[in-house]
Amino acid sequence: MKDLNKQFDFIIELDKLKGIYRQALIKADKNRFENSAEHSWQIALTAHILHEYAVEEVNVSRVMSMLLIHDIVEIDAGDTFAFADPAILAGQESVELEAANRLFGLLPEKQFLHFKALWIEFEDAKSTDARFAKAMDRILPLLQNMRNEGGSWARHSVKKSQVLSRNQYLEGLAPKLWSYVCEQVDIAVKQGWLEQA
Amino acid sequence: MKDLNKQFDFIIELDKLKGIYRQALIKADKNRFENSAEHSWQIALTAHILHEYAVEEVNVSRVMSMLLIHDIVEIDAGDTFAFADPAILAGQESVELEAANRLFGLLPEKQFLHFKALWIEFEDAKSTDARFAKAMDRILPLLQNMRNEGGSWARHSVKKSQVLSRNQYLEGLAPKLWSYVCEQVDIAVKQGWLEQA
Repeated sequence: MKDLNKQFDFIIELDKLKGIYRQALIKADKNRFENSAEHSWQIALTAHILHEYAVEEVNVSRVMSMLLIHDIVEIDAGDTFAFADPAILAGQESVELEAANRLFGLLPEKQFLHFKALWIEFEDAKSTDARFAKAMDRILPLLQNMRNEGGSWARHSVKKSQVLSRNQYLEGLAPKLWSYVCEQVDIAVKQGWLEQA
Repeated sequence: MKDLNKQFDFIIELDKLKGIYRQALIKADKNRFENSAEHSWQIALTAHILHEYAVEEVNVSRVMSMLLIHDIVEIDAGDTFAFADPAILAGQESVELEAANRLFGLLPEKQFLHFKALWIEFEDAKSTDARFAKAMDRILPLLQNMRNEGGSWARHSVKKSQVLSRNQYLEGLAPKLWSYVCEQVDIAVKQGWLEQA
């Protein structure tokens, strides 16, 4: 098959991410569930806007690309709630790797290798770009929940320590954002949106 | 107000784009209407994948940023169907400029100026980056309609000449993609999804 046809098949396959729904609620659209495609758009822009707070050098173009592709595996693997049982989360790893191979594998070889490497870098969260990307993926639900009476936290009895641990990439990487997260989490406990523990 | 609070207000305001619905249908999600946030995600990725076909030098990072922000004005101005009455389309211009000022104006001055300039560059469609971005915004509905029995074209009695004219940025900029568009449009006419005219 010609490269162009492979690329178009991949682009059309992306439509399916618009039907993968997350736990976050969209207050601005009748509190419906958020899908992973629109979430990916918003965090790519969030990274663009907030990268000036990183105290290590971040390549914002790479971070945006990472965030645009990071959830594509959910087309096959589904979305798993961030605070789900650790056993469930662990089981996702191999399913997502298989999904990455099938989905990025729709592309011509060179682009398959490029996107798969970028996705693995994000998952490993070792490089500065990947840690910043992870941090963006995690701070956004906090912002959304704080503007929505606790949102998915309140519905799932999430604990303060879980949210802090999830946002900890920010601690060394963007201290101003980390301070903000710590303040917000304390407010959320006072409001009864997060459990104190 | 501190810069960080302005930035978070803008990021949360973005949620509203998830409630702005377009004419395109998402076959992969029960043929519901597509919203402008998930559309922006998909065309940013489309640009990443297809920029190798541009015969002029394209800065893919700038193009992706342009595509991520190009529809934000719709939060205030609403979406207008691409093939709507020209008088309606002309009336949108001043409404969208006002929307750009209010929405990007939520950000600190420096980022306001950056995003507004990027949005105006896209709208003007004179630079190579902006023309390529426009082309991506326009080829994607073609791909979607071709996989969905004519989709929004068939419902609105759109003509072949309208689709060709809308995709004409590709003619000089990415001749291989332009050939593809011409072929697809002929197929669509044969299928009865586009009017021959």
